[in-house]
Amino acid sequence: MQRRIYLHMKSLEEAREIFLSRFDLAGMMASEEIPVREALGRVTAAPVTARWSSPAAHQAAMDGFAVSSPATFGATPDKPKHLALGREAIPVNTGHLMPPGTDAVIMVEQVPDPEADPIIIEAPAFPWQHVRRVGEDLVAAEMVLPEGAAITPWAQGAMLAAGVIRVKVRRRPRVIIIPTGAELVPVAELKEDVPAGRLPEFNSVILSGMVELAGGIPRVYPIVPDDLAALTAALDQALAETDVVLINAGSSAGTEDYTYQAVSSLGEVLVHGVAMMPGKPTVLGIAKGKPVIGNPGYPVSAVLSFEQFAAPLIAGLAGKRLHPRSTLMVNPSQNLPSKPGLTEFIRVTLGRVGEKVIATPLPRGAGTITSLVRADGLLTVPALSEGLEEDRPVSAELLVPPEEIEGTLVVLGSHDNTLDLLATLLRRRDPRLRLSSGHVGSLGGLMALRQGRAHLGGSHLFDPETNTYNIPYIKKYLPGLPLKLINLAWRMQGLMVAPGNPQNIRTIADLARPEVRFINRQRGAGTRLLLDYFLKELGIDPRAVTGYDREEYTHMAVAVNVHSGTADAGLGILAAALALGLDFIPLTPERYDLVVPETTFNHPRFQTLLEVIRSPEFKEAAEALGGYDLKDCGRIVWQQ
Amino acid sequence: MQRRIYLHMKSLEEAREIFLSRFDLAGMMASEEIPVREALGRVTAAPVTARWSSPAAHQAAMDGFAVSSPATFGATPDKPKHLALGREAIPVNTGHLMPPGTDAVIMVEQVPDPEADPIIIEAPAFPWQHVRRVGEDLVAAEMVLPEGAAITPWAQGAMLAAGVIRVKVRRRPRVIIIPTGAELVPVAELKEDVPAGRLPEFNSVILSGMVELAGGIPRVYPIVPDDLAALTAALDQALAETDVVLINAGSSAGTEDYTYQAVSSLGEVLVHGVAMMPGKPTVLGIAKGKPVIGNPGYPVSAVLSFEQFAAPLIAGLAGKRLHPRSTLMVNPSQNLPSKPGLTEFIRVTLGRVGEKVIATPLPRGAGTITSLVRADGLLTVPALSEGLEEDRPVSAELLVPPEEIEGTLVVLGSHDNTLDLLATLLRRRDPRLRLSSGHVGSLGGLMALRQGRAHLGGSHLFDPETNTYNIPYIKKYLPGLPLKLINLAWRMQGLMVAPGNPQNIRTIADLARPEVRFINRQRGAGTRLLLDYFLKELGIDPRAVTGYDREEYTHMAVAVNVHSGTADAGLGILAAALALGLDFIPLTPERYDLVVPETTFNHPRFQTLLEVIRSPEFKEAAEALGGYDLKDCGRIVWQQ
Repeated sequence: MQRRIYLHMKSLEEAREIFLSRFDLAGMMASEEIPVREALGRVTAAPVTARWSSPAAHQAAMDGFAVSSPATFGATPDKPKHLALGREAIPVNTGHLMPPGTDAVIMVEQVPDPEADPIIIEAPAFPWQHVRRVGEDLVAAEMVLPEGAAITPWAQGAMLAAGVIRVKVRRRPRVIIIPTGAELVPVAELKEDVPAGRLPEFNSVILSGMVELAGGIPRVYPIVPDDLAALTAALDQALAETDVVLINAGSSAGTEDYTYQAVSSLGEVLVHGVAMMPGKPTVLGIAKGKPVIGNPGYPVSAVLSFEQFAAPLIAGLAGKRLHPRSTLMVNPSQNLPSKPGLTEFIRVTLGRVGEKVIATPLPRGAGTITSLVRADGLLTVPALSEGLEEDRPVSAELLVPPEEIEGTLVVLGSHDNTLDLLATLLRRRDPRLRLSSGHVGSLGGLMALRQGRAHLGGSHLFDPETNTYNIPYIKKYLPGLPLKLINLAWRMQGLMVAPGNPQNIRTIADLARPEVRFINRQRGAGTRLLLDYFLKELGIDPRAVTGYDREEYTHMAVAVNVHSGTADAGLGILAAALALGLDFIPLTPERYDLVVPETTFNHPRFQTLLEVIRSPEFKEAAEALGGYDLKDCGRIVWQQ
Repeated sequence: MQRRIYLHMKSLEEAREIFLSRFDLAGMMASEEIPVREALGRVTAAPVTARWSSPAAHQAAMDGFAVSSPATFGATPDKPKHLALGREAIPVNTGHLMPPGTDAVIMVEQVPDPEADPIIIEAPAFPWQHVRRVGEDLVAAEMVLPEGAAITPWAQGAMLAAGVIRVKVRRRPRVIIIPTGAELVPVAELKEDVPAGRLPEFNSVILSGMVELAGGIPRVYPIVPDDLAALTAALDQALAETDVVLINAGSSAGTEDYTYQAVSSLGEVLVHGVAMMPGKPTVLGIAKGKPVIGNPGYPVSAVLSFEQFAAPLIAGLAGKRLHPRSTLMVNPSQNLPSKPGLTEFIRVTLGRVGEKVIATPLPRGAGTITSLVRADGLLTVPALSEGLEEDRPVSAELLVPPEEIEGTLVVLGSHDNTLDLLATLLRRRDPRLRLSSGHVGSLGGLMALRQGRAHLGGSHLFDPETNTYNIPYIKKYLPGLPLKLINLAWRMQGLMVAPGNPQNIRTIADLARPEVRFINRQRGAGTRLLLDYFLKELGIDPRAVTGYDREEYTHMAVAVNVHSGTADAGLGILAAALALGLDFIPLTPERYDLVVPETTFNHPRFQTLLEVIRSPEFKEAAEALGGYDLKDCGRIVWQQ
């Protein structure tokens, strides 16, 4: 059993320098001649010069009458001239060729009666008036496009206007992607379910798309099993057929990670391990003069590693310049500690709240591809830093256009499944608007409102003393802040258990049985407070509940634990249990409210959201999720 | 002969409102189901929910050993536990499925001797440590993508990870383009030359590209001649086969402009004439419930009209949101008067000089497609304005990425053909750099340097008193400004005449013959001053020269006049005459210098340009143009 540790891990900057400077991209670039009509988006490989002039013949530049200018000299309103229609004054429209013998156009508006014959003109036409002359736009042999120009629709038009029918462009580099792994099954072959013991191979689709966007032509090889000889053979074949090779997975330091060995045997490994996160297990090499990249296996690592190494290489070979993403100063919604020595990329959602743009972190694991899908931006924690501080401005790379951020309503607080529903319906009503929800628990939401980090909160905090929801907490944590409490729904809370309830769990008291593994919500979550209330009522010490310390941040995450068998029971809402086909023991209905400060309430964006909340579509769709009672939905429950 | 005047011309804003509000885009949008693998760049037509969880099975999250956590409880450095390899501790790599009976991974780095059997562990593993649990990223039935989401490579990955193999996306709207005009010949049919009396039809290629970029599928009909019945028939057929119809040209107020009539006969014209320039002759209508747009015939008009009306419509039907271009505050290099009542779009090149971004206008004619090709930005002159003022900041829409502007060297002054050459070679040496040359004459260049509107000037001002070039003018107009005068080339000035010299022009004196039509350069041009010097020497009154008042701004434009027969002679450089195959009567060699302020000279960008100027490639290529003597090329001639 051989294990290779990254003894020589390079910083991100070093790795880029070592790898990218090794290749003479200009020398490696190839070109091809293609029809101009098919050249949209391509890059010129040489300056393009006009073959003929444009216009190629004199053209009328106005609607009117083509005339010979000397025939008009001396015309005045007092002494007008008469021109015979069709002989001395020939009707022309903009763009028509000038008839032989004519050198000027008189605009139709300047002829008192354009229907008469002869027409009468009251002013002379000077030579070449309202005429586009040969070559006015482009003359033969003039440069139409420089080398290295991206071809736009109007660049196509200019070339064709100049008689250039075919154009020499940079050939798009061919990129072969070799997926590796014994347990992978190609997604194209998947039917209803993933066969037991297999995992779907989808990284090659992600990488193919990224290759295309960088300007290359992707091709995916069949999956290679975890076998050095097979991988080396595949790499050898790929090197003969392509410009760049990407090997996906097989680049970490594990036993079956043969990328390092395969590249070594056919060429040279330049970098093994990059001090970036996600993306550390990246192999960068050269074999038979061609670049070989071992991309990490986790999808987020694969994407971020691709952006740093493969993208500039492929774009360089395509002659395209990759333009840095636009950036924006943002304020992290919480502290984001990070390991010194690694450059970390943190995916965030963004929304403008007052003067600030709040960056809410998404899950940081390299396997959570949804964190990329949901991200509006990327924060970079430099290698020398220990992390980013709550509310201290940092620069974010934008993954969405800036106006999307301006149209975002940020809701922080407790998680509820109807928030996804609201997001969909809001976007359908006005595509410029988005709802971004961060799950920080009910109390976390109130704190965020206090600090101006959210537009609205989502809260279901039960107060046993007063037997009410939310109001005592708002009075305590948001005293004096003008706001409205608006009900979203009553929802059923209960215990989620595996289908068939194998542990025969009936009440909260069953959670104290030693063999029952519970999964809890995080501190500050309303559901956690509800559990604590139940336990206190029953006189059960929380320490008696196995798993009381294991925390998740959403109802769905709790349901996942039960669904996957890593817990026997969790407290949560019916909708989450139904979504995963779990059994459910109902305990109590509870009120879930939106906490809406006046500044948010008066904003047109929120008013649109309120229309959605009060619409029959929302009510019907929420009821279909199960466990929701919408009798108070959209009602202002209380205000201060 | 029927002529229709735009009696009811609408403002740009009114026209957009009337046209776009007429269609229920949401209702007209269609959808289709396609494989996720082919969905890059498409837009979801419904929320996408996960079919299975991701990961679909527990996976190792680290390289190491999969174990059953209870077997490790109690292990300490003092009392280590021994686990049998392959049975109690199973080697796994990141991403591997967890073997049955295991619930934790011990990282390889934490095992003192990973090659031993049994392995020794010195700390307990807690349950689910370093394990990616089922559904950690996505749970079945969870929303993966909302409706209306643009599909990125990672969104494809997320859908596939969630078992979604096919996805419902917005169908791309079909757009039929009908080119009209009797004199047009399809570019695809063109061989070497445009047949006499014909013009190449290339607008359909421009419009096809723009349709594609807006998210539609273009299809071009055969060219329809100027005939109402034929156009009406083509429109009728198109309406049956497509979602949107574009008729190109035939939308102005001329006699053969049948678009208005064809749309009227099959439906309703909503707008005829828009108060925008270029783009005025736009027809907007509806027929059989479908949008019909008559685009103007001039290419720049066609493009700008498309952007205002067709692009938002097509993108709307495709479910895409068009994002406004980014903008930048810029300072016009000169006054730009504009006709009140029309919204004018002015194409400009942009370059940062000191703190300012200087906007140099390109030719404003609607037929000059090169003005779009060369443009870095668009200035908008509002309908109520009489124009833009020199040096007063205005907002520019960017047609290129902002960093291109930062990499641009702005040379203003006299025109010389080797500047195009320098631009190509500079870009080849460093793709981030560009040379943007504005042709304002030698004196105009010195003025621009005085006002900080250019990085360097191009100048060939002869001073007869001192028999030198440029230095006396610099002393007069740029006193005290530290600068270097660097020679670019000596070039041959002379008279350009038609091939064969039919007018038998031999000397400057021949320009005073009444039948010789001259074409002059603009005031402030070095070539104009040279002419004035010659005329003065010979004692010829400029008024005796026919055409002395007709001005052009470049050598090539002068050559075009001679080439097209609108003038018999012009003064200019040999390279321009050779480019158009004209005859040339050499008169005098003259020195063309670059005027380089110290601030520019010390900048790395300029140093790169200087390397290019001094390179053998530049000298060889310039010599190939003809008429250049490069004995002093790159030499610092003088400094102050």
